[in-house]
Amino acid sequence: MSKSELRVLGQDDQDVACCSPMVREPLGEADAVDLARMFKALADPVRLRLLSLIASYEGGEACVCDLTGPFDVSQPTISHHLKVLREAGLVGSERRGTWVYYWVLPPALARLSSLLQAPAEPVAAGARG
Amino acid sequence: MSKSELRVLGQDDQDVACCSPMVREPLGEADAVDLARMFKALADPVRLRLLSLIASYEGGEACVCDLTGPFDVSQPTISHHLKVLREAGLVGSERRGTWVYYWVLPPALARLSSLLQAPAEPVAAGARG
Repeated sequence: MSKSELRVLGQDDQDVACCSPMVREPLGEADAVDLARMFKALADPVRLRLLSLIASYEGGEACVCDLTGPFDVSQPTISHHLKVLREAGLVGSERRGTWVYYWVLPPALARLSSLLQAPAEPVAAGARG
Repeated sequence: MSKSELRVLGQDDQDVACCSPMVREPLGEADAVDLARMFKALADPVRLRLLSLIASYEGGEACVCDLTGPFDVSQPTISHHLKVLREAGLVGSERRGTWVYYWVLPPALARLSSLLQAPAEPVAAGARG
């Protein structure tokens, strides 16, 4: 099977990939379960916005006290969403005094980002077997 | 056929990110709804493996007749998962004779990949306000 040709086609598409793009070789079952869990954490608009808000906060971390304002949902709902993000390994957290602070975990984002890298170049019709 | 157009469209966003990483600026509400829908399509191990299998197939496309074998689920279940991937804009499909053929849509993958790009460097404590 000429899958190796496909891998060659894709080899230049990343400078520091931590993970092989899923377009290069079929994803294994265990990896798929693990990754689906992370994508599930991203499959909610409020959680996506929370993650983005935390990441783009000054210094890369945000106090939970700053995370409720922008959303039209209750504080317990925000806390629930933060817990889902934390359990999926996408954010870290730490209590300091009264408040809990959150920050994104770059390796987790990088893993998903690398995985989703599109083919390096359009598939050439002539490359078809 | 429109597939070649899609592939050509897709080639530009490989090196030039089509979307701003979510770690750089807070994601808007409409974008978050749209993106969450795409991540939801990825939030299932069988769908992730299907997408990966299609993408890594010779020539970048796969006949539905080749997609049932590797999975321990029924053909109707595979068809359902393929429909979810198609409706999320992650794969394209076309019937040719008896079979339907599927291929990934690189711009959609590139959009998600860019979005999840991690911060370029670890957060420096000194950078905090």
